[in-house]
Amino acid sequence: MCGLEQFSHVWLIYHFHENTNAVKQQQQQHVKAKVHPPALGGKSIGLFATRTPHRPNPIGLSVARLLEVHSNGTLIVGGADLIDGTPILDIKPYLRHDIQTEASVPEWCEAATAASLIREVRWTAAAEASLLSALPSLRFYSQFSDVRKAIQQVLCLDIRSVHQGRGNAADGQRFVVRFDKLELVFHTYEAHVEVERCDLY
Amino acid sequence: MCGLEQFSHVWLIYHFHENTNAVKQQQQQHVKAKVHPPALGGKSIGLFATRTPHRPNPIGLSVARLLEVHSNGTLIVGGADLIDGTPILDIKPYLRHDIQTEASVPEWCEAATAASLIREVRWTAAAEASLLSALPSLRFYSQFSDVRKAIQQVLCLDIRSVHQGRGNAADGQRFVVRFDKLELVFHTYEAHVEVERCDLY
Repeated sequence: MCGLEQFSHVWLIYHFHENTNAVKQQQQQHVKAKVHPPALGGKSIGLFATRTPHRPNPIGLSVARLLEVHSNGTLIVGGADLIDGTPILDIKPYLRHDIQTEASVPEWCEAATAASLIREVRWTAAAEASLLSALPSLRFYSQFSDVRKAIQQVLCLDIRSVHQGRGNAADGQRFVVRFDKLELVFHTYEAHVEVERCDLY
Repeated sequence: MCGLEQFSHVWLIYHFHENTNAVKQQQQQHVKAKVHPPALGGKSIGLFATRTPHRPNPIGLSVARLLEVHSNGTLIVGGADLIDGTPILDIKPYLRHDIQTEASVPEWCEAATAASLIREVRWTAAAEASLLSALPSLRFYSQFSDVRKAIQQVLCLDIRSVHQGRGNAADGQRFVVRFDKLELVFHTYEAHVEVERCDLY
């Protein structure tokens, strides 16, 4: 890793090793040509026009801030969206040429579109209490405010699948997702998401 | 490729399939940890601090302008540095988040350093004449001015290896490189490169 510490950012190239359709794919020898990105509100688009993990070659690409380079070769990075344990295929320095300021993207990829899809996240008293009591058992967080913020950043984006009614209110229906060592139970309303519980699983 | 045409730029992830040390690597089961990037003027640095093709996983990453998307799935791209026939592993849209304007790089990666290494390219009359007569047989170029400019862009960078004396003048010594269907014979002087011949091979 000698010399890498001179760069502020790196590219991570990695294997999407937790694709839930990986086994199915191997049997069928193909992936679905179209996907439903959250920002397209239920419409589909060709997979190569997206960064979906479900690709013919399940290779991921993320830019990350390079925080620390240890003498044993360990890198500490931040700001990247990888699952813990992801196999890294390659690491490259982020260069000036990677900044293409004149690049244009369709409107559904603009930040404003993403912002318009964000829901406010509200917590029940029970949810906050259960999070606080679970805190000592968490793997990736030690501060209450950190984990609370991280959960908000996840749930505000409406992470439900198309089949779960993504984009639409589902008053009364409970959804469950795992986060660190927690099982989050939440409800999705027209303009907000409510966290009902977050218990250790 | 449906939807990809809405993007101006794409990422190409590919296999460095023409690595000349590929066979050697497989036998030795390792790559050299350090490389000699041209901009470091003979000094070495860890391979992960560079974009060298000689990496443990020989995967390349280049941004390209997306010029055309054909209905049969063929993409026409520009501005990327790939060898003809390179196996493409994945294609991804270039997104706003890929622009990290606050990223910093070491001085040897700055454009000014690259510019300081550029030599003027001069042509002998024989070189220009041989290029003109070879033009109809070229595979990638049909215009004299295009191929002449492309050759200049290659030779101005001092493409010689460290062992060939990269960075230093080599008065009188002939170097040879293949380009399209041409064999370029050139000399490297202190401040310029002279193209002696460019004949079909």
